Amino acid sequence: MRQSKYFFRTQKEFPKDESSVNARLLIRANFVDKLMAGVYTFLPLGWKVMKKIENIIREEINAIGGQELFMPSLQPKENWTTTGRWDSMDDLYKVQDKSDREFALGPTHEEIISPLVKKFINSYKDLPVYLYQFQNKFRMELRAKSGLIRGREFIMKDLYSFHVSQEDLDDYYQKATQAYKNIFQRAGIGEKTFVTVASGGSFSKYSHEFQTISPAGEDEIYICNKCSLAVNKEIKAENEKCQGCGADDFRQEKAIEVGNIFKLGTKYSAPFNLAVKDDKGENQTVIMGCYGIGLSRLMGTIAEVHNDERGLIWPAAVAPFDAHLLLIGEAKSDLKVFGEKIYQSLAKNSVDVLYDDREGISAGEKFADADLIGIPWRLVVSEKTLAAGKVEIKKRGEKESELLTLEQISKKIK
Amino acid sequence: MRQSKYFFRTQKEFPKDESSVNARLLIRANFVDKLMAGVYTFLPLGWKVMKKIENIIREEINAIGGQELFMPSLQPKENWTTTGRWDSMDDLYKVQDKSDREFALGPTHEEIISPLVKKFINSYKDLPVYLYQFQNKFRMELRAKSGLIRGREFIMKDLYSFHVSQEDLDDYYQKATQAYKNIFQRAGIGEKTFVTVASGGSFSKYSHEFQTISPAGEDEIYICNKCSLAVNKEIKAENEKCQGCGADDFRQEKAIEVGNIFKLGTKYSAPFNLAVKDDKGENQTVIMGCYGIGLSRLMGTIAEVHNDERGLIWPAAVAPFDAHLLLIGEAKSDLKVFGEKIYQSLAKNSVDVLYDDREGISAGEKFADADLIGIPWRLVVSEKTLAAGKVEIKKRGEKESELLTLEQISKKIK
Repeated sequence: MRQSKYFFRTQKEFPKDESSVNARLLIRANFVDKLMAGVYTFLPLGWKVMKKIENIIREEINAIGGQELFMPSLQPKENWTTTGRWDSMDDLYKVQDKSDREFALGPTHEEIISPLVKKFINSYKDLPVYLYQFQNKFRMELRAKSGLIRGREFIMKDLYSFHVSQEDLDDYYQKATQAYKNIFQRAGIGEKTFVTVASGGSFSKYSHEFQTISPAGEDEIYICNKCSLAVNKEIKAENEKCQGCGADDFRQEKAIEVGNIFKLGTKYSAPFNLAVKDDKGENQTVIMGCYGIGLSRLMGTIAEVHNDERGLIWPAAVAPFDAHLLLIGEAKSDLKVFGEKIYQSLAKNSVDVLYDDREGISAGEKFADADLIGIPWRLVVSEKTLAAGKVEIKKRGEKESELLTLEQISKKIK
Repeated sequence: MRQSKYFFRTQKEFPKDESSVNARLLIRANFVDKLMAGVYTFLPLGWKVMKKIENIIREEINAIGGQELFMPSLQPKENWTTTGRWDSMDDLYKVQDKSDREFALGPTHEEIISPLVKKFINSYKDLPVYLYQFQNKFRMELRAKSGLIRGREFIMKDLYSFHVSQEDLDDYYQKATQAYKNIFQRAGIGEKTFVTVASGGSFSKYSHEFQTISPAGEDEIYICNKCSLAVNKEIKAENEKCQGCGADDFRQEKAIEVGNIFKLGTKYSAPFNLAVKDDKGENQTVIMGCYGIGLSRLMGTIAEVHNDERGLIWPAAVAPFDAHLLLIGEAKSDLKVFGEKIYQSLAKNSVDVLYDDREGISAGEKFADADLIGIPWRLVVSEKTLAAGKVEIKKRGEKESELLTLEQISKKIK
């Protein structure tokens, strides 16, 4: 992609109305635009990151048997009164049509998927079933001051599992836990992300969160120094010893919740009479689990974790491009031809390149923009590198650069 | 994908509360589930079709320079009062938060993209720009009786173009027209889809629709028998002669509008003061175009066009799977091994197969389900084909079947 044609505009200043690191960086670097508090447009750069995150999640959820579908945002009031959440859920957006019929704007989809699955299963032989979607969710957040970490409208992956027995749910819950670890590892925050025992709300005693250490975190967690299982501060008092290994040596950290998995039990299946005949021919209420990851929140968290004073530093697997090629110096004919050749050759080798071919922009500005955007590899073509028939390559976040041939560069990046 | 594990359940009857062919077929065949009038869940089978449609559109829109982004559904009231559509747009869903601030649920995004682009452009050199998204839209439809053809919530591709001159818009409008033709051709409705001159609404004298001939159509069009340009009945009176070739020989057809492109002019740029400096340094209000395709409507239209008394007949490019492999007869060890081998081998050859490995289902039911779902190629393994070491292959919608080797089948399908 040629930067001269890209929907991109250098912003010299950080936005004044944002206090969070992620929103300040992501707005200034053109990944998102703020429409209002907690509501963002994903610009082309940011949308590429979201699509990479989405694909990582899709691969890992498909690998544990997930089947992708897509449920509506407009949801009948009756479904929400059935579970009692029409009244109890504070942050539910409600909509009316002309006939005064009321709808919820989906903040989550238990109220839709439970009656849906009911239409499809009769027998214990029809279970287990794992269904998920990527979808825009709506929550009437009072405080939406954390950039992409807490949105009024946000993109979420929600997976729901349906089982005939608690054992089967427990088994799948373990698989989902591992899939989540894989996802956060691949997204570049694995080292900083800890499985955290948290309150189970009204469903069960405990749930599990995936908490990423960051000063921007709204949660506090206690990480076991022996086995790394963490516990959320909200239930630390009742967990003096680690649930994983029994040790009582913890360190305290601020953290961002990037994922949450719940054993719902029959909380949502019971009100909808979602049941199957078991192997004795008796009715058995279906046991459910749910597993969420906020994609926009994950993107915000990656931005919080991977940055320096110059800007963002994207992990390769979620970077908007593989490499950022900068044409430095006056774009005379020779140099232009050379830059073009490098750009085309990399594209042929399936390296996804953002090519800063802008004219009338100083070298300093181009370098500053490249650091701000934070694409993993910075490539420079200039009179100097042209003379050597090579390209300068530098990794974002490192200081040393090298002069390499095109072939060497393709190998290094792949 | 093994059908025994797939989220799928044969429905013997058509749904009673749907009158449209597309919804009756798509619900019974497990592509969609109806949540309420005009609001559908896309089940795994249907979501695969949607993703294929999305990819075709993405490729064609990227090819004409489109850059993909993603804008919010929750939109500030102020943006809509600026254009006057807060009051004038009848089918706008409105939402309030706790502080009584009001929002629109986006039925379209001119009110968001115009002020967004304003932040990114200054000079005529920054134009043209082409931005698009795939997104859930909301419209308070009074009559939502046409299945996926007219939804209250529906998935749409909306592309917006920004130009410094009318000539530049005209030029891009032609390119978009060709891209749309490519899309409908690839989606399998090219032969039945006609560029149709229609009213330009409040923006310009004319717009262009893409109308697909179908008895389910809510529009009536007059197709020129000489050059195939059509004209919508609503403006036929003022178009006695064909705008394309001047002939006056038309045939009348019912048709479904699957796409619509508009020259917006300055209708939405002017209220937001979206302007650039032209090459003389003078302010020039930006000229816009917009280009929509409803993906769910397109899926519904394909279903209306491609079906017979047995069920759906998907064009290959948008089919949920490439082939439907049926294990027929008692699944004894030999036959099971053979079926498994065929299934695995096809997968290795990148043929996406739905494998009907269900036990205790009669041959008649499996054949009926296969016809109902409408995957392009039906493959059968049975005692008879096993004895020959071959697989029976039949194209959906055709009568003749053949016994072929695995190798021949892979070639035929690809």
